[in-house]
Amino acid sequence: MQITLEALRALVGSAHVLTGDDVTSRRVDWMTGAPCQAGAIVRPADTEQLAAVMQACHALKQPVVTHGGLTGLVHGAEASPAELVISLERMTAIEEIDQVGGTITVQAGAPLQRVQEAANEVGLQFPLDLGARGSCTIGGNIATNAGGVRVIRYGMMRQQVLGLEAVMADGRVVSSMNRMLKNNAGFDLKQLFIGSEGTLGIVTRAVLRLQPPTPSEQTALVACHSFDALTGLLSHMGKALGGGLGAFEVMWQNHYRLLTETLARHTPPIPPEHPFYVIIEALGNAENHHAEQFREALEQAFEHDLIVDAVIAQSSTQRDGLWAIREDIEGLVKGLAPVLTFDVSLPIADMQRYTDALEQQLVQRWPDGRLVVFGHLGDGNLHISVSVGSDAPEERHAVETLVYEPLKALGGSVSAEHGIGLEKRPWLSTCRSQAEIELMHTLKQAFDPHQLLNRGKILS
Amino acid sequence: MQITLEALRALVGSAHVLTGDDVTSRRVDWMTGAPCQAGAIVRPADTEQLAAVMQACHALKQPVVTHGGLTGLVHGAEASPAELVISLERMTAIEEIDQVGGTITVQAGAPLQRVQEAANEVGLQFPLDLGARGSCTIGGNIATNAGGVRVIRYGMMRQQVLGLEAVMADGRVVSSMNRMLKNNAGFDLKQLFIGSEGTLGIVTRAVLRLQPPTPSEQTALVACHSFDALTGLLSHMGKALGGGLGAFEVMWQNHYRLLTETLARHTPPIPPEHPFYVIIEALGNAENHHAEQFREALEQAFEHDLIVDAVIAQSSTQRDGLWAIREDIEGLVKGLAPVLTFDVSLPIADMQRYTDALEQQLVQRWPDGRLVVFGHLGDGNLHISVSVGSDAPEERHAVETLVYEPLKALGGSVSAEHGIGLEKRPWLSTCRSQAEIELMHTLKQAFDPHQLLNRGKILS
Repeated sequence: MQITLEALRALVGSAHVLTGDDVTSRRVDWMTGAPCQAGAIVRPADTEQLAAVMQACHALKQPVVTHGGLTGLVHGAEASPAELVISLERMTAIEEIDQVGGTITVQAGAPLQRVQEAANEVGLQFPLDLGARGSCTIGGNIATNAGGVRVIRYGMMRQQVLGLEAVMADGRVVSSMNRMLKNNAGFDLKQLFIGSEGTLGIVTRAVLRLQPPTPSEQTALVACHSFDALTGLLSHMGKALGGGLGAFEVMWQNHYRLLTETLARHTPPIPPEHPFYVIIEALGNAENHHAEQFREALEQAFEHDLIVDAVIAQSSTQRDGLWAIREDIEGLVKGLAPVLTFDVSLPIADMQRYTDALEQQLVQRWPDGRLVVFGHLGDGNLHISVSVGSDAPEERHAVETLVYEPLKALGGSVSAEHGIGLEKRPWLSTCRSQAEIELMHTLKQAFDPHQLLNRGKILS
Repeated sequence: MQITLEALRALVGSAHVLTGDDVTSRRVDWMTGAPCQAGAIVRPADTEQLAAVMQACHALKQPVVTHGGLTGLVHGAEASPAELVISLERMTAIEEIDQVGGTITVQAGAPLQRVQEAANEVGLQFPLDLGARGSCTIGGNIATNAGGVRVIRYGMMRQQVLGLEAVMADGRVVSSMNRMLKNNAGFDLKQLFIGSEGTLGIVTRAVLRLQPPTPSEQTALVACHSFDALTGLLSHMGKALGGGLGAFEVMWQNHYRLLTETLARHTPPIPPEHPFYVIIEALGNAENHHAEQFREALEQAFEHDLIVDAVIAQSSTQRDGLWAIREDIEGLVKGLAPVLTFDVSLPIADMQRYTDALEQQLVQRWPDGRLVVFGHLGDGNLHISVSVGSDAPEERHAVETLVYEPLKALGGSVSAEHGIGLEKRPWLSTCRSQAEIELMHTLKQAFDPHQLLNRGKILS
């Protein structure tokens, strides 16, 4: 490292400069459990300390990697011995809740679930939700523009952020802690820090929008006999629920069958013989009206031959049971080990052709190859899991080629919600033009000319 | 101008290079009717022609001003004789609607209303809506991040844009025509062109998100006896409607009384004696359930002393009659002429103190001064109209000082939805820090180093 431990200790205190085992005992990759290799980990207490650390790093051209909850899936948290890790683990305060305005002001290290809980405590909700809610942080959610299961109703993290504060590569603090839904006074700078994976600045605080609660959650698992019925169902439910569709999570048969039949990890609420299964969730209030509206909408779907079987959850236990199938990533990983996982987006209308062709190409090359598909259909987002008996670099690259190359012609994306990090960097040009990548470099150059922030992530 | 008419004619054809009366007959300001002063107006047929025009302008350092529907309110369309106006009036095509994915692909010159109608024709809706819908264009909506009356439910224009294409100052075309809700492949470049008022690039095409229709619109006009009741009502309706609150448009008594009593332009559906009036709109489907839910929510509001009077529209004519009061800008302008109008945002909880103090200061200085307030309360956005008997620069500046200065301490904004343009440029530093403005200059320098695009707008 260019910066000395003494210099860091002077800025944040000895207790907050970690070295040796305190560094390597941290896992930077959730899937592989790979240890942190950074030269040191520094834990600033607040924005001021973080700014001082970045000023010192800037003067010495010391590259840094920012750590949030370490739940990322694209190696965005990896750091070399020459790099300093900045961890936001001490900056977890929930600073303020404005019940009238419907906003919450938090430090970037606050875990998502704590923010959700704080909102609930005052009778509001923070609607972004994903499996890693207990560990992932608001700063990480912002840096990666997190998605999850409510995007179809509330949008991604970008839509939840009203204001934010960031520390730039040279230690300048840019504070745009706007609290209003509307603010068109000049460029909306916060957009630059959202989804750029910490490469343009380090998010330190944020103002998030809270939403009215939707205490009535109606949940069903339904089966469809064809892809056309599936997309017809998405359209029908959107209309019938009048904007109240909260989730539309599809499992291809290969996913549902693996978890309920092959691995028998869940009792199938519906027999596993249908091509597609969907968890549909409607969000509302006024329990009675809402339950009735939901049931009527499903009845209409039956009448129009859009669904062939359905169960409606009658309790939160039943609801949890339905979601458990969809969220059983552990089962998926075990059942397909060694598994290669992908997170892509593409126009919904092209999905069936895409997955059919992919499966065909996989088994052509690996006769025992297996493909499992589930995802946030309404968002155009599929999670694809592939098993070809090996996850060695060569196989991985061959499978990546099969998964990513066809997206080019479809206008799809190699990353729907996980980001680019290091893992998908070689594939960025599959879904971004030369002009787009040039413009990204222009921005990086303007904001971080010495490449100090998450060097090599997204862009090389 | 640096560029010759011959050069322009060679690029787009003689018929599409306007000069003389064809230029001055255009009004660049909706309020004053000021004529266009540009050296010429050029009307490219498509992105390719526009890119060629910008390449030529770039080579000659010829500054340009982009024109959409000319409905802006902050002098963003003004051009000097040394400037070339680029009008997108020939680029109005609706290129494609994807019913399955719920997207519409349009050229930037398409009027908002045509896009709304095209969505309706396929059983979907494009939810952004504002009074200028017939004239304003999608490109203008994007460049100014337009707001309107549905922001509380669907967000501003930014939230409607999935993908876009822009021509840069040097003529490069950056195409990011993403069609999915989720795409985290690198920096989200389109955000830079949204809300930057044409200063970073010229938007040429866009992919917009469509929403399921909400055919049941329940509308009521209610009266509140205090500001606390008003904010309590906002919170109550948000919760009671389970996320279906579509509009929450407040009129201070001074607004309601002016239009219904003083000017008698509308029969008051409720007597004009209450301090606050609100148009509440709920969006949904399933007419019966929805009407019942709406009525119950209002009954609860009565029981909790949040409202003291109410009428629910029983027909679309009644609905239009309620909205007509709120949307009677013509009456407002006539009743207060010469009027000074403002578009600010601030935390909701601070609004009453802010408007009370403002009124007090106004009448202190101009004993006959009048203040009229209405706005999108749920968005933190107030439209303030002031009459002090003159709109001369000196009076305007004095009133601007009273309106804008207090926003600094409140974390408010001098522009909620109208933008900065030329009019509010002197006030940008009231609501943006030095660090923010520096970063805006950094971006402008990186994207348009010769200041060719809308020179002097937003930033000097």
